[in-house]
Amino acid sequence: MSATVLYMSMSLDGFVAGPNETRANGLGDGGDRLHAWGALEPRDRQHAGDRAVIDDFMTTGAVLAGRGTFEPADGWGGDHHDGVQIFILSRHAAPAEFAHWPNVHYVDDLEHAVTEAKKAAGDKNVMVHGAGLTQRLLAAGLLDELQIHLVPVLLGQGRRLFDDLGPEHVELTPAEVVQGHEATHLRYRVVR
Amino acid sequence: MSATVLYMSMSLDGFVAGPNETRANGLGDGGDRLHAWGALEPRDRQHAGDRAVIDDFMTTGAVLAGRGTFEPADGWGGDHHDGVQIFILSRHAAPAEFAHWPNVHYVDDLEHAVTEAKKAAGDKNVMVHGAGLTQRLLAAGLLDELQIHLVPVLLGQGRRLFDDLGPEHVELTPAEVVQGHEATHLRYRVVR
Repeated sequence: MSATVLYMSMSLDGFVAGPNETRANGLGDGGDRLHAWGALEPRDRQHAGDRAVIDDFMTTGAVLAGRGTFEPADGWGGDHHDGVQIFILSRHAAPAEFAHWPNVHYVDDLEHAVTEAKKAAGDKNVMVHGAGLTQRLLAAGLLDELQIHLVPVLLGQGRRLFDDLGPEHVELTPAEVVQGHEATHLRYRVVR
Repeated sequence: MSATVLYMSMSLDGFVAGPNETRANGLGDGGDRLHAWGALEPRDRQHAGDRAVIDDFMTTGAVLAGRGTFEPADGWGGDHHDGVQIFILSRHAAPAEFAHWPNVHYVDDLEHAVTEAKKAAGDKNVMVHGAGLTQRLLAAGLLDELQIHLVPVLLGQGRRLFDDLGPEHVELTPAEVVQGHEATHLRYRVVR
């Protein structure tokens, strides 16, 4: 059964991007710090813990992301990994620069986006990416698992992964902890 | 050499207390959820990971806390553990109800409080507790280590541990990860 799994690098103080995000500064000021753990080394020099987590998200069968994540990343060139289908939640149609990619689908309804992404993923999981999307999926009870790459830094300011949630607690079950070279990879299942 | 070590239970979304904190509701609404990991079981039934962390903070030689942490907790009855000296950072003198405890010292200067707590701790560490105090210690470069008890819940609202920090990154070095029954205990050293 396909599960929706959030993959996100987060500082210990809860940020997934630095301040002053713009289209040209998609990770915000200093936000690239959060992605250093996965980007620096060629595969054979990666820490085994980091490599296991990268291998895991490379096996996902579809990507579901928000427009605010996808567009500043230049749409990952139309291919996040292995040509899997990419579903972008957006009230607007795809801008012309992204509309010609065959694997990219702009969808305006949250439940429909999840349904389509799961269908495209088949028996693989759906990789979820983006803070705003995460908050909407949590509120709708549509997020199954979280894989947080907890980066040992206090960013101080920026965009928080978990924000504007309601006062109801969302209980999680720890599924796995993997220490990488510097990031601590925390896997949780959402209790429903 | 004595180190200042923050011990704090925090939800995955960064909260150390629920909303609506008052003197009579010191952990905020639902904030007791964050402390369930350490409170439920008698010692011989605790998870070994949780017990190791509890044993560790019980070996600290002094406590340094903010008034906002100490007073709603009724001053821990004047004895946090083993009769170690307790230093409370506060602009005001101790209220009458706490002033008679021989081990409790209200101090109005941050650096002085750290110096006195380290002196009292001797060759043991100083246990730091409280969100506001943590933010002040970090800003002043006076916090040496963090031991976060990461609780698998999204609280949604409340008081954040890391808030109002400046835009400068504070780099941390992961020192240890210990999985308890439910909480994940993350130890970091502050890089300076």
